[in-house]
Amino acid sequence: MTSYKLLLLPGDGIGPEVMAEVEKVVAWLGNAGLATFETEIDLVGGAAIDVHGKPLADATLAKADAADAILLGAVGGPKWNGVAYDIRPEAGLLRLRKELGLFANLRPAICYPALAEASALKPELVEGLDMMIVRELTGGVYFGEPKEITTLPDGSKRAVDTQVYTTAEIERIAHVAFDLARKRLGRVASAEKNNVMKTGVLWKEVVTRVHQEHYADVELEHVLADNCAMQLVRRPKQFDVLVTDNLFGDVLSDVAAMLTGSLGMLPSASLGAIDAKGTRKALYEPVHGSAPDIAGKGFANPIAMIGSLAMCLRYSFGLGVAADRVEAAITRTLASGARTRDIASEGTKVISTAEMGDAIVREL
Amino acid sequence: MTSYKLLLLPGDGIGPEVMAEVEKVVAWLGNAGLATFETEIDLVGGAAIDVHGKPLADATLAKADAADAILLGAVGGPKWNGVAYDIRPEAGLLRLRKELGLFANLRPAICYPALAEASALKPELVEGLDMMIVRELTGGVYFGEPKEITTLPDGSKRAVDTQVYTTAEIERIAHVAFDLARKRLGRVASAEKNNVMKTGVLWKEVVTRVHQEHYADVELEHVLADNCAMQLVRRPKQFDVLVTDNLFGDVLSDVAAMLTGSLGMLPSASLGAIDAKGTRKALYEPVHGSAPDIAGKGFANPIAMIGSLAMCLRYSFGLGVAADRVEAAITRTLASGARTRDIASEGTKVISTAEMGDAIVREL
Ligand SMILES: CC(C)[C@H](C(=O)O)[C@@H](O)C(=O)O
Ligand SMILES: CC(C)[C@H](C(=O)O)[C@@H](O)C(=O)O
Repeated sequence: MTSYKLLLLPGDGIGPEVMAEVEKVVAWLGNAGLATFETEIDLVGGAAIDVHGKPLADATLAKADAADAILLGAVGGPKWNGVAYDIRPEAGLLRLRKELGLFANLRPAICYPALAEASALKPELVEGLDMMIVRELTGGVYFGEPKEITTLPDGSKRAVDTQVYTTAEIERIAHVAFDLARKRLGRVASAEKNNVMKTGVLWKEVVTRVHQEHYADVELEHVLADNCAMQLVRRPKQFDVLVTDNLFGDVLSDVAAMLTGSLGMLPSASLGAIDAKGTRKALYEPVHGSAPDIAGKGFANPIAMIGSLAMCLRYSFGLGVAADRVEAAITRTLASGARTRDIASEGTKVISTAEMGDAIVREL
Repeated sequence: MTSYKLLLLPGDGIGPEVMAEVEKVVAWLGNAGLATFETEIDLVGGAAIDVHGKPLADATLAKADAADAILLGAVGGPKWNGVAYDIRPEAGLLRLRKELGLFANLRPAICYPALAEASALKPELVEGLDMMIVRELTGGVYFGEPKEITTLPDGSKRAVDTQVYTTAEIERIAHVAFDLARKRLGRVASAEKNNVMKTGVLWKEVVTRVHQEHYADVELEHVLADNCAMQLVRRPKQFDVLVTDNLFGDVLSDVAAMLTGSLGMLPSASLGAIDAKGTRKALYEPVHGSAPDIAGKGFANPIAMIGSLAMCLRYSFGLGVAADRVEAAITRTLASGARTRDIASEGTKVISTAEMGDAIVREL
């Protein structure tokens, strides 16, 4: 049986806590003979700054490059907020995405029936919501040059960020979105601001062409990013796959995640291109952040992290059966009424991070 | 009595319909001796493209420059979607903002009690919502250079947009936000992405300094734009004044507007700097767009447009009494049960755009 090399990067805040629960699931899968993993663990983000003076050591990057897949907890926290731009915890995550070429960020926004009432939206608007945001992750304003602050002769400053997109970058993310739509409801919405941005003009043009040339069976709709944000709030179930650039994707995927009422539940995958051997680099992480305010208290919900492992089993290793098993265990655990603090309604019994992890392992 | 020069730019789609209702209110104010206006009307957007071949004729810009204030309906529509970037209807609006130096866009998001149930959010989350978004409107990625699409040797393309912010641009918008907060609940939230963008780093730095030097009595909080979008959905009432850049402001203000459940109700003001004579350029327009799908049907809600006139009376002419009068008439009209289609709940009697305008005039 193949043994998969898994690099675990717990990171900061609640990262290590939720990672500990995923390790229980990994161990169970190995013992059950469903999948064998060689796991290695390393530092990223603030935890790496504390030890190495930078958020992603070169040795860690080398391990990430050699791994079959990476599971990441979360990075960042107020402790490192004062530090310089390039050595902030987030810089480690951005470098990892860029160096490994993880251009396709998949963020499912699913409203679990048992949790619909936790949404800020009226339940009927979100019940059954199951959309997939496909966010471009290695281009746009995140990485474009120049990106600098200069001091003017009078002592005042001028800051510049640059958003760049090329035909090739847009083509490959469009393919990811259309391919996913084919396995889902067959609908893609593409969001940009072509009325204001040249990158939006090119984005719309390329997505339109890729659609015409290869995916006539899929339905394509173009939507302006500001209107898209509105529509997400107004009638989220109109969306199946939503593809957008790095910066709009950052904001829109957070809106979509919040709609589900269960931020602690949502996994994500960041995928690279498929190489000659048919493999691709991949990093899996929860949508939620490092939540420093609740770190160390056992409040964190490990489901997003464990769900990220399920995505990893499916997308990186083709282990659909094992992935289904993990997801079914999560569903059964929730159905049994197990609730961490973030998803508990008033009066419900609340269990800890570790208890939730144990409950899921019992249901496996 | 001073006579104010008012330029009316109805624009496209439902623009002319809602502008017709504001003209009734303007006429009433004149007859009642509350304010005298010289009004002039001109083309902008698609309507101007059809006549002049461009969305903002130089003569129109000159009139706008000479006016004491501008009321604008809305621009854009599918008819002009195929045309080149610089002659799209939106280009006229952007040029108007830029040439007149309308750097401060004020967008109140108010949830009218009678309409709370029209929100996608649970009523208790939005009832009583009264926040003000202050969006920087003449800088950032909307106007930065380079902004271009180039063709590469292999025939593929590369698009670039540039986001620029200077100390001076951030300072003046920060002052607007803090000054407004002083007259409200005394709280400002400033949204950027300083963890990814250099303009965000400078934004945070300058807002922090302006706060320390001039507004120690106001409470300031920094929030990342993605988290801000989430918080708007999760717990909108936490915000009083929210200040942000042009692009984030575009998206976040649309989210906030949608929360109120009454997009057809929300006015906005775009203000320039105060000059030596104590006056400032100003344009007032509804938050909603041109809604081409319902144009010409009498479905449009004129309240956002009439509310924009009220903002104009208050901010441009210091006519607080007249402004109060218009706003009170709107409130009474709503309380009497008058509803256009967008704000009607099931089973309510629906009235037309003109009927709503007449009802408001009767309540004046
Ligand atoms: C931590 C931060 C750099 C990151 C981003 O902006 O991409 C985060 O918000 C995300 O969405 O993964
Ligand atoms: C019409 C468009 C150019 C404009 C913008 O992006 O600013 C609109 O969305 C707005 O918010 O006023």
